[in-house]
Amino acid sequence: MKTFLKSMLEDLDTRAGRYFAFFIQSLILVSLITFSIETLPDISDDSRSVLTFVERFLVGIFTIEYLLRIHVADKKTGFIFSFFGLVDLLAILPFYLSIGLDLRSIRIFRLLRLFRLFKLLRYNQAIKRFHRALMIAKEELVLFSCVTAILLYLSAVGIYYFEHAAQPEQFQSIFHSLWWAVATLTTVGYGEIYPITIGGKVFTFFVLMLGLGVVAVPTGLVSSALSQVRSEENE
Amino acid sequence: MKTFLKSMLEDLDTRAGRYFAFFIQSLILVSLITFSIETLPDISDDSRSVLTFVERFLVGIFTIEYLLRIHVADKKTGFIFSFFGLVDLLAILPFYLSIGLDLRSIRIFRLLRLFRLFKLLRYNQAIKRFHRALMIAKEELVLFSCVTAILLYLSAVGIYYFEHAAQPEQFQSIFHSLWWAVATLTTVGYGEIYPITIGGKVFTFFVLMLGLGVVAVPTGLVSSALSQVRSEENE
Amino acid sequence: MKTFLKSMLEDLDTRAGRYFAFFIQSLILVSLITFSIETLPDISDDSRSVLTFVERFLVGIFTIEYLLRIHVADKKTGFIFSFFGLVDLLAILPFYLSIGLDLRSIRIFRLLRLFRLFKLLRYNQAIKRFHRALMIAKEELVLFSCVTAILLYLSAVGIYYFEHAAQPEQFQSIFHSLWWAVATLTTVGYGEIYPITIGGKVFTFFVLMLGLGVVAVPTGLVSSALSQVRSEENE
Amino acid sequence: MKTFLKSMLEDLDTRAGRYFAFFIQSLILVSLITFSIETLPDISDDSRSVLTFVERFLVGIFTIEYLLRIHVADKKTGFIFSFFGLVDLLAILPFYLSIGLDLRSIRIFRLLRLFRLFKLLRYNQAIKRFHRALMIAKEELVLFSCVTAILLYLSAVGIYYFEHAAQPEQFQSIFHSLWWAVATLTTVGYGEIYPITIGGKVFTFFVLMLGLGVVAVPTGLVSSALSQVRSEENE
Repeated sequence: MKTFLKSMLEDLDTRAGRYFAFFIQSLILVSLITFSIETLPDISDDSRSVLTFVERFLVGIFTIEYLLRIHVADKKTGFIFSFFGLVDLLAILPFYLSIGLDLRSIRIFRLLRLFRLFKLLRYNQAIKRFHRALMIAKEELVLFSCVTAILLYLSAVGIYYFEHAAQPEQFQSIFHSLWWAVATLTTVGYGEIYPITIGGKVFTFFVLMLGLGVVAVPTGLVSSALSQVRSEENE
Repeated sequence: MKTFLKSMLEDLDTRAGRYFAFFIQSLILVSLITFSIETLPDISDDSRSVLTFVERFLVGIFTIEYLLRIHVADKKTGFIFSFFGLVDLLAILPFYLSIGLDLRSIRIFRLLRLFRLFKLLRYNQAIKRFHRALMIAKEELVLFSCVTAILLYLSAVGIYYFEHAAQPEQFQSIFHSLWWAVATLTTVGYGEIYPITIGGKVFTFFVLMLGLGVVAVPTGLVSSALSQVRSEENE
Repeated sequence: MKTFLKSMLEDLDTRAGRYFAFFIQSLILVSLITFSIETLPDISDDSRSVLTFVERFLVGIFTIEYLLRIHVADKKTGFIFSFFGLVDLLAILPFYLSIGLDLRSIRIFRLLRLFRLFKLLRYNQAIKRFHRALMIAKEELVLFSCVTAILLYLSAVGIYYFEHAAQPEQFQSIFHSLWWAVATLTTVGYGEIYPITIGGKVFTFFVLMLGLGVVAVPTGLVSSALSQVRSEENE
Repeated sequence: MKTFLKSMLEDLDTRAGRYFAFFIQSLILVSLITFSIETLPDISDDSRSVLTFVERFLVGIFTIEYLLRIHVADKKTGFIFSFFGLVDLLAILPFYLSIGLDLRSIRIFRLLRLFRLFKLLRYNQAIKRFHRALMIAKEELVLFSCVTAILLYLSAVGIYYFEHAAQPEQFQSIFHSLWWAVATLTTVGYGEIYPITIGGKVFTFFVLMLGLGVVAVPTGLVSSALSQVRSEENE
């Protein structure tokens, strides 16, 4: 019995293991949806009691799963203090902790339930390949993060000196200008803060010409690293 | 005669086949344009009667084409229930169905005419190469769709906690925040919903730095897969 | 003398040829700047007379250059009716035509002066490599243009059905929706037209996930084709 | 003693050298943060005196570092007039210059302190690889800068003729239209200036289809050049 449970819980190569993993993943998705629905402003009391029921059901299943995992683990303390052991515990703990407390403080604990998402990582084989691609391009990614940071800062300082006098409300400080730099160099461009002086516009032009490449190059690096990992696997 | 018709309708290697395919494709484009014009708010009665005439003419041609295709098919029922057989039928059926009905319900059936667009797929050889490129990069595309989905969700949860108190109207729930996450991570940035708190802006910065790559990597993958397909064909 | 003129005008491998090409290119840039300045709303009479002088000077030089090119050409009619022969003529013709006419009609002819820009193409060797890269990726670019067009159209039809009832002003017709599709799929997102219904937002999400790749793939193709051309040249 | 100082200041392969470089880099970051905080609109007098103290402390350290670097340099005048020698001097000079002057003129000198950022370049080995990648793709980057410039200009002229009559305020001149072209072709799309006429929208569509590739191709080139540099290093 324990052998079967062990293979079901830990071995994705068996049929039972795959079904169980799929079952748990589905429940995690359900718990995310209910978590999201709870934030909707107007929920009727009926809906709320349904949500509460689903909530208790999910925590029940997750608790059973957690206890079974401890049961089948070769080294029990090893599992409990492993990354996924702690994630599994954190996913259910807030519910039990909130029983004895008043309603307000629960809200904060609820956020911990998001750790359940990381459970998906456990089952997903493909994420390992992505991880390897990141390792290949690691150095370049660090370099470009630094260059991006410097570029964002210099852009913010520049636009501050061009626009501060014309728009003291919008470009109040270098920190406010940094927000403009982020929104502009990522080309999101919300449009609530933008240069209006000629100097600021010309500066924005040069910053964009320089910056678009810097911000977008890491994507190309990850993409080519992934192609590399794929072709290595094919060989 | 039937042999000639068959080659014209089904064989793109013959001259008649290419001309006929080009003729049908042009008519599909015309039908799309008239379909679009009909949605314009102010159309004079004269224009409307021209549109109605073009409409009847197109359906007439498409009906003849459909009947001819059944005529020349080796297995008639096989063609009728094939994907393109059904598309051809759905492209003309709404017109005949709407004759006996009142004007309101026609509107809904009209949408089916969009299936005519898929006819273009039948003739286009190049789409097969794109299809093969998608097959090569399939696994990565699935993985990145999942990572993108998780990232969008986590971004929405994060921004909800940062901005909900400051902008209860805009960031009403996690679902409203999801819309922000979609508009921001794709860098569309309509600008009708954006963070205003310092925490929210800093969070947006980190989400964008992480997210731009994730959202844009699939493009690089498809692009390199297409290059691969092209170089394989050249060999 | 004619031999020297010929080498100066047509041979970029000689010193005189390079200097002359650089000189003409600079004048083209000057003419573009004056052309732009003339559109400024408030120009003093003094500035305007300076502009007129520069204008006449430039046309004079370009006329001399044009006549010299005819002079040194091996086949005079061949040059006059070649692409760059016509461009050179169109660049100066509007000025002479406008002498006998009143001021209003000049405005329209002025636009022709933009053809001068194409002169830059004549001198730039590097553009040939870009041209070759485009040839390599030609088929894919045509295919993706078609797919992009279909995608834009389907997006427009979709959003029209989702948003027309909620925002009859903004999404008046499929043509108005097409503008939304263009601004959204290119991720420009001006923010003057965007979905507000839940259906429209979910539809936008799927359209963006599908569309970002389609719109951005051609860039990757051109970029890899250019790398290919470069490596071929190095061999 | 001088030998130890020299290795600490100039040799990153020794332990002391790395620690010292890290220490100076941290101080540069601190000085950037204090520089940014000073631009905040409302700072209490207490905070301001803390900032002044940190300011004096940093300039003290940087002065000692500068003098030590002169001390250990093999050719003293060679160091003083080298790029980083001048940067080090410019980073501390404004402080000493501002002692005898009134407060207003200091503001301008403060900007020079930004040169401190370039000190980071001295220590960062990885930037050399990025530099080499830029060298490889240099020709293409220059070409694409030119094509981008021409495209921006033609887009501006085009949109000016389409939108000037309909929006004389927004599209006042070709220079105003250039700002639109920059914001649109980089897909930032702030949304404070956009076409409203049908002609302008159709024109925008074609400009975007053509322009997105042109603006984004350099990124792909840099990215593939970087991959090339990395693979060359691995060999």
